[in-house]
Amino acid sequence: MSAVHDARPAHDARLAVDGDRLLARLDQLAAIGPIEGGGCCRLALTDADKAGRDRVVAWMHELRLDVSIDRIGNVFGVRRGAEDLPPVMTGSHIDTVRTGGRFDGNLGVLAGLEVIETLEQLGIRTRHPISVGFFTNEEGARFQPDMLGSLVFVGGMAIEEALDVHAADDGARLGDELQRIGYAGPVPCPTAAPPHAYVELHIEQGPVLEDEGITIGVVTGVQGISWTELVITGQSAHAGTTPMRLRHDPGFVAASIITGVRDIAASMGGTQVATVGRCELTPNLVNVVPASVVMTVDLRNTDEVLLQEAERRFRALCAAVAEAEGVTIESRSLARFEPVEFDPGMIDRVEAAAQGLGHSTLRMPSGAGHDAQMLARVCPTSMIFVQSVNGLSHNIAEHTKPADIEAGANVLLRVLLDLAQS
Amino acid sequence: MSAVHDARPAHDARLAVDGDRLLARLDQLAAIGPIEGGGCCRLALTDADKAGRDRVVAWMHELRLDVSIDRIGNVFGVRRGAEDLPPVMTGSHIDTVRTGGRFDGNLGVLAGLEVIETLEQLGIRTRHPISVGFFTNEEGARFQPDMLGSLVFVGGMAIEEALDVHAADDGARLGDELQRIGYAGPVPCPTAAPPHAYVELHIEQGPVLEDEGITIGVVTGVQGISWTELVITGQSAHAGTTPMRLRHDPGFVAASIITGVRDIAASMGGTQVATVGRCELTPNLVNVVPASVVMTVDLRNTDEVLLQEAERRFRALCAAVAEAEGVTIESRSLARFEPVEFDPGMIDRVEAAAQGLGHSTLRMPSGAGHDAQMLARVCPTSMIFVQSVNGLSHNIAEHTKPADIEAGANVLLRVLLDLAQS
Repeated sequence: MSAVHDARPAHDARLAVDGDRLLARLDQLAAIGPIEGGGCCRLALTDADKAGRDRVVAWMHELRLDVSIDRIGNVFGVRRGAEDLPPVMTGSHIDTVRTGGRFDGNLGVLAGLEVIETLEQLGIRTRHPISVGFFTNEEGARFQPDMLGSLVFVGGMAIEEALDVHAADDGARLGDELQRIGYAGPVPCPTAAPPHAYVELHIEQGPVLEDEGITIGVVTGVQGISWTELVITGQSAHAGTTPMRLRHDPGFVAASIITGVRDIAASMGGTQVATVGRCELTPNLVNVVPASVVMTVDLRNTDEVLLQEAERRFRALCAAVAEAEGVTIESRSLARFEPVEFDPGMIDRVEAAAQGLGHSTLRMPSGAGHDAQMLARVCPTSMIFVQSVNGLSHNIAEHTKPADIEAGANVLLRVLLDLAQS
Repeated sequence: MSAVHDARPAHDARLAVDGDRLLARLDQLAAIGPIEGGGCCRLALTDADKAGRDRVVAWMHELRLDVSIDRIGNVFGVRRGAEDLPPVMTGSHIDTVRTGGRFDGNLGVLAGLEVIETLEQLGIRTRHPISVGFFTNEEGARFQPDMLGSLVFVGGMAIEEALDVHAADDGARLGDELQRIGYAGPVPCPTAAPPHAYVELHIEQGPVLEDEGITIGVVTGVQGISWTELVITGQSAHAGTTPMRLRHDPGFVAASIITGVRDIAASMGGTQVATVGRCELTPNLVNVVPASVVMTVDLRNTDEVLLQEAERRFRALCAAVAEAEGVTIESRSLARFEPVEFDPGMIDRVEAAAQGLGHSTLRMPSGAGHDAQMLARVCPTSMIFVQSVNGLSHNIAEHTKPADIEAGANVLLRVLLDLAQS
């Protein structure tokens, strides 16, 4: 592994993480719940998640952090500061999707521990405490909603309601699973002591940084999300005996919506994206005009006004194509989150730290959800992104180059130190 | 049930089938392998099919027909003629799809028996024998290809190859199933004695006759069919983090093909139809740009030159949209049949008989495949269509009004008598 030799000032050349040590911890955590090919499966509150939690908590104890667990199972390791001030917090999550990679979430948590270990070795004491946390069920792969632990931490969902959530697959109750794996902690939620600030290092999970040859993404906020499910009902018919003029084909309407939302995104430009990821025809036979189609549309924008404009155009599109083909469309919202804007001062700090280390930077929104967007409700927040090779994530092929991991961890180190001394 | 009171000449007013008797037989056959709601499931060579065959063969014996069974299980009941001439043949099939109706196929066979019974009662002896047949595995729902029995009957497939076909679902060998249900007959295939002519009464299985208010469809031939499966491979990506310009979305390409083949059919007009009945996204998740799509395209035209033109345009469409989006498309032919043109003299006879009974008629191609298209290889052939309510078929809601059934059977009676006396 090569160290990053940026044009950083000689006077703080010692102020750098040990990239090999961080990678070794990433390897050790990835060995818990491994998937052949290099991926990871540690669904929230499963035995594999417990084993991963135990591993990270053991490292926290090795670093002599004060470990606390709250009622929703969020875990925090705190390095004391010189003064009795609110902690500067970093962290992320260590649960994964079913076919997860080894960096998503894990990087933010283990880079936080690496920053702590670096400060220890350099004998640097900070004014503020520094807290490294991992939040319960960020992925939402087992329990809905996603980002549940951080949501409860900031008071966005009542603890009792959260404990009563049941798993989509096996029906297990979240509170019971927390008890079962020994992570139903005593600390109340929402937190009584919001952090001084929060900064999270994460892989981009998209292709932009790599495509533009940029090392560090300075995250300005999180896109608003609008998910809609459509059930399009037409008239099943024989593919040979039904003239085109007599068809009421929900598959054709679905296709018109797929191409139509692409047009909406193209004409709006900016951060607007539109995706049809799910589309199912019934009866799905080669020689039968479908009776019905179920599909989803995912619209995102960093600007709430523009997201509403995209939604308006999408609804008009659906109405027009349904009318023209003589089909009906039932629509229901699956999810709706307004965009989150991170703190301008925090964004500036991340950018300054990265540029101070000589890295190329790009201010960019996050297209994915992160615990940071929940923390942004209670304290100044931003994020640091590093490249995802080929933009892949939620995939065993998820990869970030060692040099980028080290670069990101060093930016995290600088930002945390900057904040903790302020 | 109302009788059809058309403006037919008074001198042959007695020459009419007993519509109630025909409907009663349709009811009795539908009671074998019934589906709740009025449908039928008698997949080829199952116990239900055997029970249906036994029922029809019993009726053939009651009508004192000479019953013979060939090696592929096609069954023929022959009423002797005054002279030793090739028989005029009618018939269809009695196997059904899994969610079949009670008229598809069954009508043609039982209307043939009704014609025989009518001739018996009227004491009409014909020059040619009249044969009523039902062909094995017309639907293709259990064994591929469809229309297998009639295909083997006319020499389009070797009997040994056909007997060695295995069922798609349970793997059973067709020859073994024929033996098991007692319908592996001794008569060689292909037939050594092609019929003098063949005419088949069938429900339209489409909406055209009903839409145009026409009683009798005079079938001019069968559309050519071109089925293609496409496997479109793009790049799976996160719906939030992947800008539109960096996408290689096979779902978008599939949608462009669905709308594109609609445009091809619209611009070509005539009998050209184009259908995408099957389309599957992988991984099919709301927030993931698909990695791949498998879809089918069904193109049909009555004119081989035009069908080839549609195929050419379809291939060009695929190449253009794949290139524009940066995805790959693998294409394979699932089926390809040239159009079949029925005998002009037979078409004229059907039309004359229907108009002679005062019915409105429409010359039309069949969009679906029928045993008649196989018989057309060895003798002059045509078909008679009657309305399908709402164009439905292969569906428990399949329905044809009693008046239409009786009208169709009377046209069949006239055409058979005309042919058998010629």
